[in-house]
Parts: sequence; C-alpha cells; structure tokens
Amino acid sequence: MQLSEIYQLVEEDLTRVESQIKAVTEVDSPRLAELLSHILGGGKEIRPALTLLSGKFYHYNLDLLLPMATAVELMHTATLIHDDAIDNSTVRRGRPTINKVWGEDKAVLLGDYLFAKAGEFAAITGNLRVIMLFSQTIQIISSGELDQAFDAFNLEQTRARYLRRISSKTASLFSLATESGAILSQAPEESIKVLREYGCNLGIAFQIVDDVLDFVGTEEEMGKPVGSDLAQGTLTLPAMLLLERYPDDNPVKELFHNRDMPEGDKKKKIKQAIELVGNSSIVKQCYEAASDYCAEACHNLGLLPDNLSRQALKDIADLVISRKR
Amino acid sequence: MQLSEIYQLVEEDLTRVESQIKAVTEVDSPRLAELLSHILGGGKEIRPALTLLSGKFYHYNLDLLLPMATAVELMHTATLIHDDAIDNSTVRRGRPTINKVWGEDKAVLLGDYLFAKAGEFAAITGNLRVIMLFSQTIQIISSGELDQAFDAFNLEQTRARYLRRISSKTASLFSLATESGAILSQAPEESIKVLREYGCNLGIAFQIVDDVLDFVGTEEEMGKPVGSDLAQGTLTLPAMLLLERYPDDNPVKELFHNRDMPEGDKKKKIKQAIELVGNSSIVKQCYEAASDYCAEACHNLGLLPDNLSRQALKDIADLVISRKR
Repeated sequence: MQLSEIYQLVEEDLTRVESQIKAVTEVDSPRLAELLSHILGGGKEIRPALTLLSGKFYHYNLDLLLPMATAVELMHTATLIHDDAIDNSTVRRGRPTINKVWGEDKAVLLGDYLFAKAGEFAAITGNLRVIMLFSQTIQIISSGELDQAFDAFNLEQTRARYLRRISSKTASLFSLATESGAILSQAPEESIKVLREYGCNLGIAFQIVDDVLDFVGTEEEMGKPVGSDLAQGTLTLPAMLLLERYPDDNPVKELFHNRDMPEGDKKKKIKQAIELVGNSSIVKQCYEAASDYCAEACHNLGLLPDNLSRQALKDIADLVISRKR
Repeated sequence: MQLSEIYQLVEEDLTRVESQIKAVTEVDSPRLAELLSHILGGGKEIRPALTLLSGKFYHYNLDLLLPMATAVELMHTATLIHDDAIDNSTVRRGRPTINKVWGEDKAVLLGDYLFAKAGEFAAITGNLRVIMLFSQTIQIISSGELDQAFDAFNLEQTRARYLRRISSKTASLFSLATESGAILSQAPEESIKVLREYGCNLGIAFQIVDDVLDFVGTEEEMGKPVGSDLAQGTLTLPAMLLLERYPDDNPVKELFHNRDMPEGDKKKKIKQAIELVGNSSIVKQCYEAASDYCAEACHNLGLLPDNLSRQALKDIADLVISRKR
C-alpha cells in the first residue's frame, strides 16, 4: 500500500491544502516571496492528511478543516526552518536550507513569520478550542526542543527522557493534527480522545523510525545527511541501545566526550556508529518499539465509526513503520 | 510628568499584568523556568499600559484586557529575544541576553515558546478579530525585520523605506496594543480607527527616538551598548541625515563599505559617527520628526470621549519624545 493510495480519500482536499500553501507565497515583498517559495510547496504531506482524515468521522466541514490542515503543515515547516537554523543544517528535503542560502538571521525571522501565518489559518477556523490547542502545541514543541538542546552531548539520558522529548517535539504536532480534525468535525469527546491518542502514538512511532533512518537511511532517501543526530549531539534510541550493548569502547561515547575533536575524526566516529547499528539487531529492536506504538495508536480506533477513513488511519500506521524517508 | 503618574489610572491592573507575566515562569521544566525567569518581569511597560488605557473609553472589561495586555508584552519580549539572537547582542535591559548566557539555539526556541504563550493569552480573550490581528501583527513585524536584515549595510535606502520598516517592526505592535484595547472594550469602529492610528504614529515616534538614543544615549540609560544599530549595519534616520550632510567623507559610509574592517577600526568609525551626530542639529531634526508623529498621534484623540485616559494618551505622546531610555 502506498501513501498515495491511502490519501485517495482526501486527495482532492489535500490538493486544496497545497494550493492554500502555495498562495502563502504571494506577498508584496519580493524578498519574503522568494524565501517562502523556496521553502513551501512540498506536496501532499502526512500531517494535513491526518487532519482531513480525522475529520471524516462526523461532520466533515471543509471550511474549517482546510485552514486547519494548512495551519498544521505551515507550523511544521516553521519548526523545520528553526531547527535547521539552530543545527546549522545545510540540506533539507534535498534542497539547501534557508540558513544555508540566506543566513541564520533570515531563517529565524522566516520561521517566526510562518508560525504566525499558521496561527492565522488556525484562527480562520473560528474555533477557540482549536486555536488554544494550536498555541499550546507550539509551546510543547519548543519546550521539547529546548530539552534536546540542553541535553546535547549528554550521555546520561534515560529512555523515559527520550520518549518524553519525542512526545513533545514530534508527537504533539501529530496529535494536534488529529485532535483538531476531530474537534472541527464535532466529534464527541470520546472520539476526540481516541484520535488525539492515535496521533500521539503514531507521532512517537514516526520519530523512532526517523531516528533509525538517521542511521540506516541514505541521504538520497532522507533528503538530508545521515548521522546528523549524532553530529548534533542528540542521543536517540538507536544510539542509546548501542551504548547499552557496548558500554566501554563505543564511538558514540568517544564522540560525545570529545566534542572538539577534528571534523574528520568526528565523521569517522559517526560512520563507525552507523555501521555498528546497521550490523546489529538494534534496528530491528527500534522497529519493534515503533511497531508497539503503532499498535497502541490503532488500539482504540475500533471505537470510531467504521468507515474508509478508519481503515486509512490503520494503513498509515502500517506505513509509518515501513517508511524509508 | 512621569510615566508612573500617567500610569496611575491603570496602575492596579498593570500590577495584575506583571503578576500574569510572572506566573508564566512557573513551568514544570526547571531549565525553561530558569530562562523565563531571566527574561520576564521587567516592571510596568508602555505596551500593556496602552492596551489598558485604550480600553478605558467604552466598556472596560478586565477579563479581556488583562490577557491581551499580557499577550502584547510577551510578544514584545519574544521579538527582543530573537532580535538579540540574530544580532549577537550581549546586553539588554542592563542584563546579559539569553543568547549570551545560554546560546543562540536556546534563544530561538525560547522566543518561539513566548510567541506561542502570547498567542495563548490572546486566545483567552475569545475575540476572533483580536486573535487574527495578533497573528497578523507578528507577520508584519517579522517581515519588517526581514527587510532590515536584507538591507543591512546597504547605503541606498530612502527615508520612505526607513519609515515603512519602523512602521512594520515597531509601530505595528503599538497599534496592536491600542487597537485590541479598543476592540475588546466594544468601541465603535470610528474610535477603533482613532486608537489604531494613535498607536501607529506613537510607535513611529517611539522608534525614531530609539534610533536617536542609539547615538546620543548612554549604555546605562539604554541598558544596551550605544551605536549598536551602526554595528549591525542598520541605517536609521540619524545616520541617513548624517549621510546627507556629509556625502563624501563620512564614517558611516566607510563602515558600511568595509564591513570586514578590524573591530577596533569599526569602533572608531562608530564613535566618529556618534560625535558628528551629537555635534550637529541632526538630533534636533530627528526629535522634530518624532514630534510630528506624536502630534499626528494625538490629532484625532479629540474624537474619543473626554476622560482621564484620553489625557494619559496625550501625556504618553509628550513623554515619548522626551524619554531618555
């Protein structure tokens, strides 16, 4: 099953989201327009699809779901722009980052602009609960990112802390996507809860897979260099498991202990870590963890009305743990 | 007349704003709490005062005005944090900046957090028009800041461009402060317009004075180093007038043409420019321009009900052009 097949149900409306996002680039300032055109218009994405699909169980109201799906995708883009600026990343989605081309200052300001534009789209729904949730989600995400920044190059991290961090920085946006879809389609509270928890668990699984792919993916598939988490000093699940297996002589440990080692040595250590992970059962173990979260995500979907959208959400969960990028 | 006297009218409620802002620092994460405590709690500020005073003409509803005044001040703080990160500024309000103490990455994320927290407070008003205005204002501000960043070290700037830029980056927040106060107190459209335009003109005057003080103030008064605009390559009104007066041999020109000159030479050029401005009638000319905007700000206040708040707004306009920090 391909993502495109799953999306069929909301294909037309996802195209509308794309058009809305494209329209965001139409601003008076030619320089702002250039930056926006560089970063926007990536195609049919998972987060807005989740909002639309989550809106299919009760009163599907496109006038509300369309701006919200757009808000969710724009907010995601804003976080990526700031992440790349913070990490000095040079490539994203196979293209040079905003900070690489125009400088970090422009990236910070463009991210601010898009957070606010996303907020405007959320406000178009006119739904105060969703608007509030939107603002709270940005707080949760930045707070999770702050934790990650403070924990950089820190080897003393528990798995619980890792899970809390990815819940904040990734899963919260997935659950905003699904929960807002539910709220805007007037779902009963119980169904809102089911969809929120689906989003949350799916988001955790998504991030675990993302973290594995940073070890075993290719730059071509990922649209960004592999090993970048280690380079940033971010300890993810695969690296944690590697530390457990090789507590003494371990490239991650050496890398984190000697942050100022020459660039060439760093790359060697990262390559070693990637090979060790690739040649172990760590990848399998991570996918199992992700699988568990996907199973958990789907666990209560049975409480929702039985329709094509429910099947699509299950299919997305299956896809998340088999994705390559 | 002191600011404290003018504020008397809203003294008690400004204290409530302070308490709300202080409460923002009470979060679970001790590291986030530390950053928030460092940056929040500056005292009674002009922007929330403007919101409260603008709410005094019709139905003063503290349940709505209090969160909005808080939102306005938090949004202002968020912009300062990002500005300082972008400019690598080390001192603000007499204290080390977030980026100086914790690094630029933390500053970006903390700014994001506070933008979103401000958005949450705006949402508490439950007023969709104000919520929308809030998001649009952040877009206008970041777009103005982007223009400024793109125009850095560019000598070919017109006064019209300067005014457009400060309208976006400064005056838009002042007019959000006054307009939202008007809307939330159920002012008629005509009065909303009067207060919005008051805020806009006051904001322009405020920024012109700010730009003058960057030349003729002291670090002690300003809470940050003087000459920082020139150091960032930002061409403000005093520098523009200096270029007009000395088109050939001009320290600003030399500074902007040779961005890579040694730090010591840069400082000399900045000092020269500061002295030239200080010894000319440029300061007077700038204050006259600011005065004109203040007069324009007050021009239509007569259309509002005659009360103490109207007088306070006039007094604030007088104070803006005599302020020393």
